[in-house]
Amino acid sequence: MITSTAATTASSPKHATPAFPIHALLAARWSPCGFTDRAVPAADLGALFEAARWAASSYNEQPWAYLVATHAEPEEFARILSCLLPANQAWAKAAPVLALGVVSLKFAKNDQDNRAAVHDLGLASANLVLEATARGLSVHQMIGLLPDRARELYGIPDHHEAWTALAIGYRASAEQLPDALRERDLAPRTRKPAGQFVFSGTWGQPAPLTQPRA
Amino acid sequence: MITSTAATTASSPKHATPAFPIHALLAARWSPCGFTDRAVPAADLGALFEAARWAASSYNEQPWAYLVATHAEPEEFARILSCLLPANQAWAKAAPVLALGVVSLKFAKNDQDNRAAVHDLGLASANLVLEATARGLSVHQMIGLLPDRARELYGIPDHHEAWTALAIGYRASAEQLPDALRERDLAPRTRKPAGQFVFSGTWGQPAPLTQPRA
Repeated sequence: MITSTAATTASSPKHATPAFPIHALLAARWSPCGFTDRAVPAADLGALFEAARWAASSYNEQPWAYLVATHAEPEEFARILSCLLPANQAWAKAAPVLALGVVSLKFAKNDQDNRAAVHDLGLASANLVLEATARGLSVHQMIGLLPDRARELYGIPDHHEAWTALAIGYRASAEQLPDALRERDLAPRTRKPAGQFVFSGTWGQPAPLTQPRA
Repeated sequence: MITSTAATTASSPKHATPAFPIHALLAARWSPCGFTDRAVPAADLGALFEAARWAASSYNEQPWAYLVATHAEPEEFARILSCLLPANQAWAKAAPVLALGVVSLKFAKNDQDNRAAVHDLGLASANLVLEATARGLSVHQMIGLLPDRARELYGIPDHHEAWTALAIGYRASAEQLPDALRERDLAPRTRKPAGQFVFSGTWGQPAPLTQPRA
């Protein structure tokens, strides 16, 4: 359980190296490829989706849904796994829990397009990931999946679409992983400097607030 | 500063009423319409975008950008404000900070469509909102804006698009607000039960893990 509320130093090679101190949960989160086979307790898993439930959404539409399976139900797990692209299946099969993030692309009340829908699935999944981090779990989200296969296998209705997949579990020590995965999981986390994406006045002009203060 | 890591009880009418305990920051977050005119310290504002910076994204593309203005620069603030729909301008003008969330819809390296782009803007903004919550700030995100006007005013390039707006600041006491806003800010937060969006086996079948345990 991560309890401190600010982090300025890297406690591991995978910890963010923020230019400003940010909340410890945000700094500690990263997306491993290696998972142990340790099962996720049902109460923890329930809390992850409860966290997603309380995300913000446009008109409170809550346009997200999740299909979930665990290693405890091998057939169900294999069914979700089969919706991932092979390159993701290769590592995600080790995670004890898989989910598909499904988005409702139209408002339920009037069938109008919901321009916020995919964005708001992101808000919900970010909540899920932070709850997971707080519980010592890791989540690796994927866009590489087969939406048509998921529609067929699960009866996903019109105007809904499987958009993401999520592997959920306890991070494996990188030393136990095959070479390619070990390299990915040991690589340092990198990001553009804030001045390359926080602008003021005009596109491309770094906002003064992106400059760390003494 | 919110420091506890779990919340099971409602500490205010706007606190989430989770069926499972979830992290205090996730339970405390909500989107007010009423903001005070208190300025946001530059270091806090910098940390919000730093939190966004460390979000996950597909291929680590980081497809998000933000245009930001504060009350301290009235012309810049008015410019961003003019990109919102009038119904949002009405209340968002009181917030001391406004931002536009801009998404890059194609991968920089190969100009291919990035299906995850809008989702990943959501991941980044969710990080920003959680950092804000940890610092006693509130954020109200909007989809109601004028992307073409933003493109013209800021020179947003092709294959990029303003997708969201964010009002950032300190929540005003609801008692100080005009009637319509007061009602919105005092209304309890509501969500679908988890059994209506967390499924297993087939679409619409509630996952057993959504049932709270004794």
